[in-house]
Amino acid sequence: MKERRAHARWKGELETGKGIIELSSINFKTNYNFQSRFEEGTYTNPEELISAAISACFSMALSKIISAEGYDPEEISTTAGTTLVKEGDGHKISKIELRTRVTAPSISEDLIKKLADTAKDNCPVSKALTGVDIQLTSVELA
Amino acid sequence: MKERRAHARWKGELETGKGIIELSSINFKTNYNFQSRFEEGTYTNPEELISAAISACFSMALSKIISAEGYDPEEISTTAGTTLVKEGDGHKISKIELRTRVTAPSISEDLIKKLADTAKDNCPVSKALTGVDIQLTSVELA
Repeated sequence: MKERRAHARWKGELETGKGIIELSSINFKTNYNFQSRFEEGTYTNPEELISAAISACFSMALSKIISAEGYDPEEISTTAGTTLVKEGDGHKISKIELRTRVTAPSISEDLIKKLADTAKDNCPVSKALTGVDIQLTSVELA
Repeated sequence: MKERRAHARWKGELETGKGIIELSSINFKTNYNFQSRFEEGTYTNPEELISAAISACFSMALSKIISAEGYDPEEISTTAGTTLVKEGDGHKISKIELRTRVTAPSISEDLIKKLADTAKDNCPVSKALTGVDIQLTSVELA
Protein backbone atom coordinates (compact mmCIF):
# COMPACT_ATOMS: atom_id res chain seq x y z
CA MET A 1 0.00 0.00 0.00
CA LYS A 2 1.45 3.33 -1.10
CA GLU A 3 0.12 6.77 -0.27
CA ARG A 4 1.23 9.52 -2.65
CA ARG A 5 0.80 13.03 -1.38
CA ALA A 6 0.65 16.39 -3.08
CA HIS A 7 -0.17 19.82 -1.77
CA ALA A 8 -2.03 22.89 -2.99
CA ARG A 9 -2.36 26.33 -1.45
CA TRP A 10 -4.92 28.87 -2.54
CA LYS A 11 -4.88 32.53 -1.43
CA GLY A 12 -7.81 34.83 -1.95
CA GLU A 13 -11.10 34.78 -3.80
CA LEU A 14 -11.87 32.55 -6.77
CA GLU A 15 -11.37 34.95 -9.66
CA THR A 16 -8.52 37.03 -8.28
CA GLY A 17 -6.75 34.51 -6.04
CA LYS A 18 -3.45 32.75 -6.55
CA GLY A 19 -2.70 29.07 -6.22
CA ILE A 20 0.40 26.93 -5.89
CA ILE A 21 0.54 23.20 -6.58
CA GLU A 22 3.41 21.20 -5.15
CA LEU A 23 4.69 17.74 -6.06
CA SER A 24 6.94 16.90 -3.16
CA SER A 25 8.51 13.75 -4.65
CA ILE A 26 10.29 15.83 -7.24
CA ASN A 27 10.42 19.10 -5.30
CA PHE A 28 8.34 20.86 -7.96
CA LYS A 29 6.09 23.86 -7.45
CA THR A 30 3.92 25.52 -10.05
CA ASN A 31 1.20 28.18 -10.07
CA TYR A 32 -2.46 27.95 -11.00
CA ASN A 33 -5.33 30.42 -11.03
CA PHE A 34 -8.85 31.09 -12.27
CA GLN A 35 -7.70 32.24 -15.71
CA SER A 36 -5.50 29.20 -16.34
CA ARG A 37 -8.39 26.93 -15.46
CA PHE A 38 -11.60 28.52 -16.77
CA GLU A 39 -10.28 30.96 -19.39
CA GLU A 40 -6.86 31.00 -21.01
CA GLY A 41 -3.70 31.39 -19.01
CA THR A 42 -0.07 30.47 -18.87
CA TYR A 43 -0.30 28.24 -15.80
CA THR A 44 -1.45 24.67 -15.36
CA ASN A 45 -4.80 23.52 -13.94
CA PRO A 46 -6.28 20.42 -12.29
CA GLU A 47 -7.64 19.07 -15.57
CA GLU A 48 -4.19 19.08 -17.18
CA LEU A 49 -2.93 17.11 -14.16
CA ILE A 50 -5.75 14.59 -14.63
CA SER A 51 -4.71 14.26 -18.29
CA ALA A 52 -1.12 13.69 -17.15
CA ALA A 53 -2.16 11.06 -14.61
CA ILE A 54 -4.32 9.04 -17.00
CA SER A 55 -1.95 9.24 -19.98
CA ALA A 56 0.87 7.99 -17.74
CA CYS A 57 -1.24 5.24 -16.17
CA PHE A 58 -2.70 4.09 -19.48
CA SER A 59 0.71 3.95 -21.22
CA MET A 60 2.24 1.88 -18.41
CA ALA A 61 -0.76 -0.49 -18.33
CA LEU A 62 -0.67 -0.97 -22.09
CA SER A 63 3.03 -1.87 -21.90
CA LYS A 64 2.22 -4.60 -19.38
CA ILE A 65 -0.62 -5.97 -21.50
CA ILE A 66 1.45 -5.98 -24.73
CA SER A 67 4.22 -7.92 -22.96
CA ALA A 68 1.70 -10.41 -21.59
CA GLU A 69 0.60 -11.12 -25.18
CA GLY A 70 4.21 -11.90 -26.13
CA TYR A 71 5.03 -8.70 -28.00
CA ASP A 72 7.68 -6.09 -27.30
CA PRO A 73 6.26 -2.74 -26.08
CA GLU A 74 9.00 -0.58 -27.58
CA GLU A 75 7.14 2.69 -27.22
CA ILE A 76 3.69 3.89 -26.22
CA SER A 77 2.99 7.56 -26.75
CA THR A 78 -0.33 8.81 -25.40
CA THR A 79 -2.06 12.18 -25.31
CA ALA A 80 -5.00 12.64 -22.98
CA GLY A 81 -7.44 15.53 -23.25
CA THR A 82 -9.73 16.33 -20.32
CA THR A 83 -12.76 18.47 -21.10
CA LEU A 84 -14.29 20.82 -18.54
CA VAL A 85 -17.78 22.19 -19.24
CA LYS A 86 -20.08 24.56 -17.39
CA GLU A 87 -22.83 22.89 -15.43
CA GLY A 88 -25.28 25.06 -13.56
CA ASP A 89 -23.39 27.34 -11.21
CA GLY A 90 -20.24 25.26 -11.45
CA HIS A 91 -18.23 23.04 -13.77
CA LYS A 92 -17.96 19.39 -14.62
CA ILE A 93 -15.35 17.17 -16.26
CA SER A 94 -17.45 15.75 -19.06
CA LYS A 95 -15.00 13.50 -20.89
CA ILE A 96 -11.43 12.37 -21.31
CA GLU A 97 -10.11 11.44 -24.75
CA LEU A 98 -7.07 9.21 -25.16
CA ARG A 99 -5.02 9.09 -28.34
CA THR A 100 -2.18 6.60 -28.45
CA ARG A 101 0.55 5.61 -30.89
CA VAL A 102 2.29 2.29 -30.30
CA THR A 103 5.53 0.75 -31.53
CA ALA A 104 5.33 -3.01 -30.96
CA PRO A 105 6.86 -5.05 -33.79
CA SER A 106 4.62 -7.64 -35.49
CA ILE A 107 1.48 -6.80 -33.54
CA SER A 108 -1.71 -6.49 -35.60
CA GLU A 109 -3.98 -3.46 -35.73
CA ASP A 110 -6.90 -5.49 -34.43
CA LEU A 111 -4.97 -6.80 -31.47
CA ILE A 112 -3.46 -3.44 -30.45
CA LYS A 113 -6.92 -1.86 -30.53
CA LYS A 114 -8.27 -4.60 -28.30
CA LEU A 115 -5.34 -4.32 -25.88
CA ALA A 116 -5.58 -0.51 -25.75
CA ASP A 117 -9.24 -0.85 -24.90
CA THR A 118 -8.37 -3.18 -22.05
CA ALA A 119 -5.76 -0.71 -20.74
CA LYS A 120 -8.29 2.13 -20.95
CA ASP A 121 -10.83 0.19 -18.89
CA ASN A 122 -8.47 -1.31 -16.33
CA CYS A 123 -5.63 1.02 -15.44
CA PRO A 124 -6.01 2.22 -11.83
CA VAL A 125 -6.58 5.85 -12.81
CA SER A 126 -9.37 4.89 -15.26
CA LYS A 127 -11.02 2.80 -12.56
CA ALA A 128 -10.90 5.81 -10.21
CA LEU A 129 -12.41 8.20 -12.79
CA THR A 130 -15.75 6.43 -13.09
CA GLY A 131 -17.63 9.73 -13.05
CA VAL A 132 -16.22 10.55 -16.50
CA ASP A 133 -16.74 9.18 -19.97
CA ILE A 134 -13.26 7.98 -21.01
CA GLN A 135 -12.91 7.48 -24.77
CA LEU A 136 -10.15 5.86 -26.75
CA THR A 137 -10.32 8.17 -29.74
CA SER A 138 -7.33 6.94 -31.68
CA VAL A 139 -5.03 3.89 -31.63
CA GLU A 140 -2.22 3.91 -34.19
CA LEU A 141 0.67 1.60 -34.90
CA ALA A 142 3.94 3.39 -35.60
CA MET B 1 -15.65 24.19 -22.93
CA LYS B 2 -11.94 23.72 -22.32
CA GLU B 3 -9.87 20.70 -23.23
CA ARG B 4 -6.62 20.36 -21.28
CA ARG B 5 -4.06 18.02 -22.76
CA ALA B 6 -1.08 16.25 -21.35
CA HIS B 7 1.19 13.62 -22.80
CA ALA B 8 3.00 10.52 -21.58
CA ARG B 9 5.50 8.30 -23.33
CA TRP B 10 6.47 4.87 -22.09
CA LYS B 11 9.40 2.87 -23.51
CA GLY B 12 9.89 -0.79 -22.73
CA GLU B 13 8.44 -3.38 -20.41
CA LEU B 14 6.59 -2.59 -17.20
CA GLU B 15 9.29 -3.22 -14.60
CA THR B 16 12.32 -2.04 -16.57
CA GLY B 17 10.79 0.60 -18.83
CA LYS B 18 11.09 4.37 -18.68
CA GLY B 19 8.34 6.93 -18.80
CA ILE B 20 8.10 10.66 -19.42
CA ILE B 21 5.13 12.82 -18.45
CA GLU B 22 4.72 16.18 -20.13
CA LEU B 23 2.60 19.18 -19.14
CA SER B 24 2.64 21.27 -22.26
CA SER B 25 1.02 24.41 -20.78
CA ILE B 26 4.08 25.02 -18.65
CA ASN B 27 6.59 23.21 -20.85
CA PHE B 28 7.40 20.75 -18.05
CA LYS B 29 8.68 17.21 -18.47
CA THR B 30 9.35 14.71 -15.73
CA ASN B 31 10.19 11.02 -15.51
CA TYR B 32 8.24 8.13 -14.03
CA ASN B 33 8.84 4.41 -13.78
CA PHE B 34 7.75 1.18 -12.09
CA GLN B 35 9.83 1.82 -8.98
CA SER B 36 8.51 5.35 -8.43
CA ARG B 37 4.95 4.04 -8.67
CA PHE B 38 4.84 0.61 -7.05
CA GLU B 39 7.97 0.63 -4.89
CA GLU B 40 10.02 3.61 -3.78
CA GLY B 41 11.68 5.92 -6.25
CA THR B 42 12.77 9.45 -6.86
CA TYR B 43 10.31 10.20 -9.66
CA THR B 44 6.63 11.09 -9.63
CA ASN B 45 3.73 8.76 -10.44
CA PRO B 46 0.10 9.03 -11.58
CA GLU B 47 -1.26 8.88 -8.03
CA GLU B 48 0.79 11.91 -6.98
CA LEU B 49 -0.67 13.77 -9.97
CA ILE B 50 -4.18 12.78 -8.88
CA SER B 51 -3.37 14.14 -5.41
CA ALA B 52 -2.17 17.38 -7.00
CA ALA B 53 -5.30 17.69 -9.13
CA ILE B 54 -7.76 17.15 -6.29
CA SER B 55 -5.92 19.28 -3.72
CA ALA B 56 -5.85 22.14 -6.26
CA CYS B 57 -9.51 21.71 -7.25
CA PHE B 58 -10.73 21.35 -3.67
CA SER B 59 -8.82 24.45 -2.47
CA MET B 60 -10.20 26.61 -5.29
CA ALA B 61 -13.75 25.33 -4.72
CA LEU B 62 -13.55 25.98 -0.98
CA SER B 63 -12.41 29.55 -1.67
CA LYS B 64 -15.52 30.12 -3.80
CA ILE B 65 -17.81 28.62 -1.16
CA ILE B 66 -16.27 30.64 1.71
CA SER B 67 -16.74 33.87 -0.29
CA ALA B 68 -20.35 32.96 -1.06
CA GLU B 69 -20.98 32.71 2.69
CA GLY B 70 -19.62 36.25 3.16
CA TYR B 71 -16.21 35.38 4.61
CA ASP B 72 -12.74 36.16 3.32
CA PRO B 73 -10.84 33.09 2.04
CA GLU B 74 -7.38 34.37 2.93
CA GLU B 75 -5.64 31.03 2.59
CA ILE B 76 -6.58 27.39 2.04
CA SER B 77 -3.77 24.89 2.36
CA THR B 78 -4.63 21.32 1.41
CA THR B 79 -2.70 18.06 1.30
CA ALA B 80 -4.20 15.14 -0.59
CA GLY B 81 -2.98 11.57 -0.19
CA THR B 82 -3.93 8.98 -2.81
CA THR B 83 -3.58 5.35 -1.76
CA LEU B 84 -2.78 2.59 -4.24
CA VAL B 85 -3.34 -1.02 -3.14
CA LYS B 86 -2.80 -4.39 -4.81
CA GLU B 87 -5.92 -5.97 -6.18
CA GLY B 88 -5.64 -9.35 -7.86
CA ASP B 89 -3.09 -9.16 -10.66
CA GLY B 90 -3.17 -5.36 -10.69
CA HIS B 91 -3.64 -2.30 -8.53
CA LYS B 92 -6.46 -0.08 -7.42
CA ILE B 93 -6.73 3.45 -6.02
CA SER B 94 -8.60 2.67 -2.83
CA LYS B 95 -8.96 6.08 -1.21
CA ILE B 96 -7.99 9.74 -1.25
CA GLU B 97 -7.59 11.62 2.02
CA LEU B 98 -7.82 15.41 2.15
CA ARG B 99 -6.39 17.47 5.00
CA THR B 100 -7.00 21.19 4.88
CA ARG B 101 -6.04 24.23 6.96
CA VAL B 102 -8.03 27.41 6.38
CA THR B 103 -7.48 31.06 7.24
CA ALA B 104 -10.85 32.87 7.02
CA PRO B 105 -11.34 35.48 9.75
CA SER B 106 -14.43 35.10 11.97
CA ILE B 107 -15.63 31.84 10.44
CA SER B 108 -16.71 29.17 12.93
CA GLU B 109 -15.31 25.66 13.16
CA ASP B 110 -18.72 24.16 12.49
CA LEU B 111 -19.28 26.25 9.38
CA ILE B 112 -15.83 25.64 7.87
CA LYS B 113 -16.27 21.90 8.34
CA LYS B 114 -19.61 22.02 6.58
CA LEU B 115 -18.23 24.14 3.72
CA ALA B 116 -15.17 21.91 3.33
CA ASP B 117 -17.46 18.92 3.07
CA THR B 118 -19.41 20.67 0.31
CA ALA B 119 -16.17 21.43 -1.58
CA LYS B 120 -15.05 17.81 -1.23
CA ASP B 121 -18.31 16.54 -2.72
CA ASN B 122 -18.74 19.11 -5.47
CA CYS B 123 -15.43 20.19 -6.97
CA PRO B 124 -15.16 18.91 -10.57
CA VAL B 125 -12.24 16.59 -9.81
CA SER B 126 -14.14 14.97 -6.90
CA LYS B 127 -17.15 14.45 -9.13
CA ALA B 128 -14.91 12.76 -11.71
CA LEU B 129 -13.28 10.43 -9.16
CA THR B 130 -16.45 8.60 -8.21
CA GLY B 131 -14.66 5.25 -8.24
CA VAL B 132 -12.72 6.27 -5.12
CA ASP B 133 -13.64 6.85 -1.49
CA ILE B 134 -12.68 10.52 -0.90
CA GLN B 135 -12.35 11.38 2.78
CA LEU B 136 -12.00 14.75 4.46
CA THR B 137 -9.69 13.61 7.23
CA SER B 138 -8.89 16.96 8.81
CA VAL B 139 -10.27 20.51 8.63
CA GLU B 140 -8.42 23.08 10.77
CA LEU B 141 -8.76 26.80 11.21
CA ALA B 142 -5.45 28.64 11.27
